[in-house]
Amino acid sequence: SDFLAIDGEFSGISDGPSVSALTNGFDTPEERYQKLKKHSMDFLLFQFGLCTFKYDHTEEKYIMKSFNFYIFPKPFNRSSPDVKFVCQSSSIDFLANQGFDFNKVFRNGIPYLNQEEERQLREQYDEKRSQANGVGSLSYISPNATKCPVTIPEDQKKFIEKVVEQIEDLLKNEENESLELEPCTGYPKGIHVETLESDKVTRKLYLIFPNPQTFTSNLSFIMQNEELNDAVGFSRVVHAIANSGKLVIGHNMLLDVMHTIHQFYCPLPDDLAKWTFFHFNLFSSYFVSRLLDTKLMASTQPFKEIINNTSLAELEKRLKEVPFSPPKVESAEGFPSYDTASEQLHEAGYDAYITGLCFISMANFLGSFLSPPKNHVSARSKLIEPFFNKLFLMRVMDIPYLNLEGPDLQPKRDHVLHVTFPKEWKTSDLYQLFSAFGNIQVSWIDDTSAFVSLSQPEQVQIAVNTSRYAESYRIQTYAEYVEKKHEEKQAKRKCTEDSWKEMERKRLKTQCTFTGTSTVGKRSMSPIQEETGSDDMEEEEGQDPEYDQTESCAEPLPDGKKRAKKFKKIKTEQVPAGKHNVHVQGFLFCLELP
Amino acid sequence: SDFLAIDGEFSGISDGPSVSALTNGFDTPEERYQKLKKHSMDFLLFQFGLCTFKYDHTEEKYIMKSFNFYIFPKPFNRSSPDVKFVCQSSSIDFLANQGFDFNKVFRNGIPYLNQEEERQLREQYDEKRSQANGVGSLSYISPNATKCPVTIPEDQKKFIEKVVEQIEDLLKNEENESLELEPCTGYPKGIHVETLESDKVTRKLYLIFPNPQTFTSNLSFIMQNEELNDAVGFSRVVHAIANSGKLVIGHNMLLDVMHTIHQFYCPLPDDLAKWTFFHFNLFSSYFVSRLLDTKLMASTQPFKEIINNTSLAELEKRLKEVPFSPPKVESAEGFPSYDTASEQLHEAGYDAYITGLCFISMANFLGSFLSPPKNHVSARSKLIEPFFNKLFLMRVMDIPYLNLEGPDLQPKRDHVLHVTFPKEWKTSDLYQLFSAFGNIQVSWIDDTSAFVSLSQPEQVQIAVNTSRYAESYRIQTYAEYVEKKHEEKQAKRKCTEDSWKEMERKRLKTQCTFTGTSTVGKRSMSPIQEETGSDDMEEEEGQDPEYDQTESCAEPLPDGKKRAKKFKKIKTEQVPAGKHNVHVQGFLFCLELP
Repeated sequence: SDFLAIDGEFSGISDGPSVSALTNGFDTPEERYQKLKKHSMDFLLFQFGLCTFKYDHTEEKYIMKSFNFYIFPKPFNRSSPDVKFVCQSSSIDFLANQGFDFNKVFRNGIPYLNQEEERQLREQYDEKRSQANGVGSLSYISPNATKCPVTIPEDQKKFIEKVVEQIEDLLKNEENESLELEPCTGYPKGIHVETLESDKVTRKLYLIFPNPQTFTSNLSFIMQNEELNDAVGFSRVVHAIANSGKLVIGHNMLLDVMHTIHQFYCPLPDDLAKWTFFHFNLFSSYFVSRLLDTKLMASTQPFKEIINNTSLAELEKRLKEVPFSPPKVESAEGFPSYDTASEQLHEAGYDAYITGLCFISMANFLGSFLSPPKNHVSARSKLIEPFFNKLFLMRVMDIPYLNLEGPDLQPKRDHVLHVTFPKEWKTSDLYQLFSAFGNIQVSWIDDTSAFVSLSQPEQVQIAVNTSRYAESYRIQTYAEYVEKKHEEKQAKRKCTEDSWKEMERKRLKTQCTFTGTSTVGKRSMSPIQEETGSDDMEEEEGQDPEYDQTESCAEPLPDGKKRAKKFKKIKTEQVPAGKHNVHVQGFLFCLELP
Repeated sequence: SDFLAIDGEFSGISDGPSVSALTNGFDTPEERYQKLKKHSMDFLLFQFGLCTFKYDHTEEKYIMKSFNFYIFPKPFNRSSPDVKFVCQSSSIDFLANQGFDFNKVFRNGIPYLNQEEERQLREQYDEKRSQANGVGSLSYISPNATKCPVTIPEDQKKFIEKVVEQIEDLLKNEENESLELEPCTGYPKGIHVETLESDKVTRKLYLIFPNPQTFTSNLSFIMQNEELNDAVGFSRVVHAIANSGKLVIGHNMLLDVMHTIHQFYCPLPDDLAKWTFFHFNLFSSYFVSRLLDTKLMASTQPFKEIINNTSLAELEKRLKEVPFSPPKVESAEGFPSYDTASEQLHEAGYDAYITGLCFISMANFLGSFLSPPKNHVSARSKLIEPFFNKLFLMRVMDIPYLNLEGPDLQPKRDHVLHVTFPKEWKTSDLYQLFSAFGNIQVSWIDDTSAFVSLSQPEQVQIAVNTSRYAESYRIQTYAEYVEKKHEEKQAKRKCTEDSWKEMERKRLKTQCTFTGTSTVGKRSMSPIQEETGSDDMEEEEGQDPEYDQTESCAEPLPDGKKRAKKFKKIKTEQVPAGKHNVHVQGFLFCLELP
């Protein structure tokens, strides 16, 4: 395929704060990562939608294959992990109303293992096998051995044909369970072929060795290997996606990506820097080079100006109309086709499908800026590279995305105040408190604190000064808030280090830990502030487990021409002359370059 | 009915320790309570089985009605609690294999509120209503007003008949939605009757007042009241059970009772003494006077000697055979009947049903000890009173039950050692360490500690002495262990008190807390030690969410004749002469008397 689209459905969103507290307008990417890691990872990703898109150049259309995987950590034996996961009633109720089939998940869900669990299980099997065989190494026939056609010498054809016939008979007749073959030079006398039912649906064929000892150990090895593959289960699909090197598309995909790493690879690292480091240095093949978030794309120029609502369903509708063109996509033979008119929203496979449609429309639209214009822009086009590996940050006012490839944006927040107050206070109390300062915006952090952004940065110091002797509330600048938070973190770390040093030392000895260092640089930007959507809508969407939200994301301006030049230079170096006549459009600047 | 049987199915059993660590053989009732409170209460009780049994004296048989309630905390509006609950894969998988219908739970489950949530919701509605009506009080027609027949005066019959006819027409014709009635003295002119669909299935009839203001407020009150009742949902059934004063039967019911209180009343109190206090002093009607655990009953004399396996399914089979007789039970008309031969085990309604059958057989068996013998022993018989309010303690070696009505048993544990060791140690290492002491029994506490019971109490001090200079492990007597634990608790409490005193003071001001003081006395008993079941079986049962286990429960001997005398005295006082000729049987002594 040319690209893949994915989507996940979860058993819940937040085990603590409300969605509005979980997505504060002034979260930094690091803070957002920490909150999602802390409050969202105990839920289960129990439906994984995957759509593959392949462009047919002759027919000028995409061929699509869609998959809905139901996922459940069914314990496969007594020593396997007994996973506990959390369910959030509102999310479950939301999915129930969409007709989600919970019985499919819990009765027939595909199991999975993360990497550590898989490693442990392999070790267990290895141990068992080496016990069964003594210490010596073992020769075996792997069912996964490369299958390639073998040329049969003319003089052996008759013999082989007879063997094939015997085996076909064995397979036809369900009552026969084994077959002794005539001896030949290829294998020792007494070898026989046997069918085995590894589960109730499939019968499998095994070549059995004559020595009873070897027979048993090989058979059990083959069985174990299959059991192991079954146990690793859906993780194998995820590994295949990650290792494919394909562009992977998602809509508002931060949570999907975090869940996928957490559930199928390993618990998420302690901080964001380690996560991005982890992406690049430890497992560079995972997802990393090729993620694209359609919600970010739609929130960025040139789409931003012409798309009002970036929620998935609305986006898909909008992209069928001018100046966009509906993409030509057909289901592959034998694959179910989705009807966008009937809107089977929130089945993961359907959501992945329309995410792919959105990407195609937007990518093709970029082609209209080329000279000469192109109708089809492929997933490999340089035009879409600026959108790679930047994940949409929902409801953050001045940072549009979390950057997996480099330093995150550091907007100036010199118009922002951090206010602490009694828990009885409501938004109206804050409006009253700041009534002298004109228009303000309130972003709740928790019951007793919020960020308040003023329209004029000059008023910030006045507000802080006037509050100096207030008893019931406290005001500090955003910079002061950040500094104190940093100090507290340091102090806490010191304290923890002192008392737990010994324990930590032990832990490090036995466990694999993430040791990446942050490469995050600093840079200040002038943020453009925009109006946020209505509160009502936020709450409405709060019930949606996908909590995809039409929230304006302010687009940071580039801080100089240097970057533009650098961009041009890279382009010139990377694009073979004459192959793509790339016009560097203004809209590309809005994204941080790698 | 004469008695009720209940059973619950949960989304999991333990969110931390394995079932074998959760149920250590030397747990005290307090420790067991703490562990279950800490590790089991975040799961959801999502199927509640209820069976009512009524004895038909003429037919000499019980008439049974069975109910399966699917329960799910569906949020009913935006401000309603968004419950998060945990699922344990092994429990979910176990239920899936039994054909459990998860779609029924999550799509159509009945909601519930605990008492605090219900109170808050009522307050919200009251506030809304008083806002809508000004501050004044409101007269309204409650749909729950007592319905009793009204005698209609002769001269008004014709008028009433006409009204009834008009209303019947309104109901027959689905298109008509309102009807204006003729004025009369009973109500002001202009009143009319209206049907309203409160959901998609039921149409309801409302009497509407002429004044538009009153009209709206009354209508919305009626709707709100219905909404409120719907939101309280299944809790109303639980309240009805608790307030019925009926004997409530369960099998291995400690977890069922804890979950029921926790989910439908309030979070469980901090310690067991407060729980039992809570039962008696705060809400004496809850369950308290009439709980009976059939697993405890079957593990106690005279049943103990003739019943090998007390797991529910095995017990039910055993109680059909001599010396027991299968009870005569029939389903009430219109109620589904269960077939014990097909064993629909682990549907809550079925489990409740066979729990009831077990109780009937065992109660009737007690009648055979009377002179003259009785075939039918009712749920009100004095013969079963010794079993009241004592909940089976699974796998505890020397304390058969948790006593809801008085002090718990305090067995001597002078043959028990507490051993701490490196986490690499296995049971075999402990056997080796104590190889000089003959037969020992190991009860794992966690990775690095276990109780080891010796056959001879005299050996305890020898073991402690010989270990004095050991480096890798540490041995102390059970008494030392208890004392140290107590000291640590006190120290911790002191520390917490110092630093959190202020916060605690605040909390106490605003919250309702459990303030009961323990009434637990002390008493020593000579425990009889028994063999535990095989490890394999324990693990097998560990996968069972009900984790009902055939584990021997040692029966404590009475510590003197004084109690027997006291018992006789009570009996003599309470039983009206000549009504019941109660022979005080030896087997009654095995239970603590209230």
